[in-house]
Amino acid sequence: MEARRVSGILILAALTFACGGERGSTAAPVADPLPSWSDSASKTAIVDFVNRVTRQGGPEFVPPAERIATFDNDGTLWSEQPIYVQLAFALDRVKALAPKHPEWKEKQPFKGILEGDMKAVAAAGEKGLLEVIAVTHVGNTTDEFAAIVSDWIATAQHPRFKRRYTDLVYQPMLEVLAYLRANGFKTFIVSGGGVEFMRPWAERVYGIPPEQVIGSRAKVEYQLRDGKPVLIRQPAIDLVEDKAGKPVGIHQLIGRRPIMAFGNSDGDFEMLEWTTSGGGPRFGAIVHHTDGEREWAYDRTSHVGQLARGLDQAPQRGWILVDMKQDWKVIYPFLK
Amino acid sequence: MEARRVSGILILAALTFACGGERGSTAAPVADPLPSWSDSASKTAIVDFVNRVTRQGGPEFVPPAERIATFDNDGTLWSEQPIYVQLAFALDRVKALAPKHPEWKEKQPFKGILEGDMKAVAAAGEKGLLEVIAVTHVGNTTDEFAAIVSDWIATAQHPRFKRRYTDLVYQPMLEVLAYLRANGFKTFIVSGGGVEFMRPWAERVYGIPPEQVIGSRAKVEYQLRDGKPVLIRQPAIDLVEDKAGKPVGIHQLIGRRPIMAFGNSDGDFEMLEWTTSGGGPRFGAIVHHTDGEREWAYDRTSHVGQLARGLDQAPQRGWILVDMKQDWKVIYPFLK
Repeated sequence: MEARRVSGILILAALTFACGGERGSTAAPVADPLPSWSDSASKTAIVDFVNRVTRQGGPEFVPPAERIATFDNDGTLWSEQPIYVQLAFALDRVKALAPKHPEWKEKQPFKGILEGDMKAVAAAGEKGLLEVIAVTHVGNTTDEFAAIVSDWIATAQHPRFKRRYTDLVYQPMLEVLAYLRANGFKTFIVSGGGVEFMRPWAERVYGIPPEQVIGSRAKVEYQLRDGKPVLIRQPAIDLVEDKAGKPVGIHQLIGRRPIMAFGNSDGDFEMLEWTTSGGGPRFGAIVHHTDGEREWAYDRTSHVGQLARGLDQAPQRGWILVDMKQDWKVIYPFLK
Repeated sequence: MEARRVSGILILAALTFACGGERGSTAAPVADPLPSWSDSASKTAIVDFVNRVTRQGGPEFVPPAERIATFDNDGTLWSEQPIYVQLAFALDRVKALAPKHPEWKEKQPFKGILEGDMKAVAAAGEKGLLEVIAVTHVGNTTDEFAAIVSDWIATAQHPRFKRRYTDLVYQPMLEVLAYLRANGFKTFIVSGGGVEFMRPWAERVYGIPPEQVIGSRAKVEYQLRDGKPVLIRQPAIDLVEDKAGKPVGIHQLIGRRPIMAFGNSDGDFEMLEWTTSGGGPRFGAIVHHTDGEREWAYDRTSHVGQLARGLDQAPQRGWILVDMKQDWKVIYPFLK
């Protein structure tokens, strides 16, 4: 095996060298890889970190295979206000499925959703919302569900901006994703949102392929339908990819600790903690929603994307607080 | 976003073209990508399939992002006789841990393991073996467990060949892995074996990085120890990556259906079924252990790697039956 392995390694090295050389020489002349970031401490920290871990022979060099960067999605890569996008999807699914469920006309929170009475919906609390998610997200095959998501995301409009939700991704973060990948990083989404809600569009919008999207997920069951195998979504949660579930999911699905992580809420705290307490160079950043005009301003008391512990501990832990208002010249790509 | 996305895509296309060009011209002159395969129908089927899905503009062209190939591990990439390697590891762990467990001297199957009485071990049945796996595989942090596996795999010897277990990988399959990757495939392991037992050495031995290894796994729990976060292996199974669990794991972790799958036992049946019943070009293969001299000959009645249903149905399903004795010029790399 050794001889074979060595020749395999040589071929691989040749390819890596050829490609690395191309990439290096292509990337080098780009004056500013992060043009939508103002010249802030945040931007400097990102660029410095990438320079340090990619400098061949440098003291903090990290081999490409270990350049894993993880990103929360809601509030980190796209807007999560006034409600999580996936919740908007679930509410629309209730409306679409209502004709088959006449009983919903009298049952909260479905009644409230159908009548636009969001106070009644809110009164049903988390339990009511979980019921909504459950009935709108199960029973389909995984292929059917992906098609439903794709259809919805192609047409549904954000209530404030009257644009598709995928238009409300953050231009500065798209630049970070592309910049990291150009420097040999593998970029992963690690989100509390449903993995099957993100995968149908994450590759097109973020350049992140399905196998690099980690999220909460339902159990699925393998069945034969008319002799053809299908995977059926079950009414049971398999993994909640939030808080301590994030390092767990990272371990189970990636199997190595990231060297870089971006989040925006206390749901990302453990992912940042896990990422930044490994050996060698480490980078953690929190997108702080400070721009009430161009986006939304919220943190400690928000019902969506609450951020308190992370805000308090970021300085002592060396995590970057990205100030959206100050650090980002532009929020959304369509406003460039 | 559109303008930005387009420019991102152009940069990406330029890089892909540069690298793809390099790769193409490097790979093309290689006369035989599978030198350890005899000129058999199996070899022809593999090479034909790869040619068809990589031919630009051809009717069966598959974009690189969708070139997913999955491989079972035990009996498909390395030998699984006389017992699964991970079971050999568990037995050695019992011996290593015995001084801390005086009660094992009187308790089966531990007593049998310590005394080399394999009949007593076998008498304890599957339940006894699960208990052995449980007590030898839990309680450690994931980092500790990875170190234990790495130490063991570096020194433990296979009883028949008196070589390290990682020497007993199949040279022809190493060639398939390298050949597929050189043609833009992403190669994944999808094994009933423990994911944390494979990851510490899979990259070095197979060129498959941790994030592309899918396997059975224990639950892990995130905890702080002296202020440092750790993941502790729990005495509970999170996923059994066998039979119908294979397509489930593939869906959850990869999120797209493979176009190519290799297995060797009925535990791989559903993975092959799921892979080959998708649309477009599909390839399924079963490594049939027919070589009682150079390796082992077993199928329908074997307690390890039983193969009956797959053997019966392979012809009608168009799955390739790889005849180890006839199709492989060499089994192990050290015998080349």
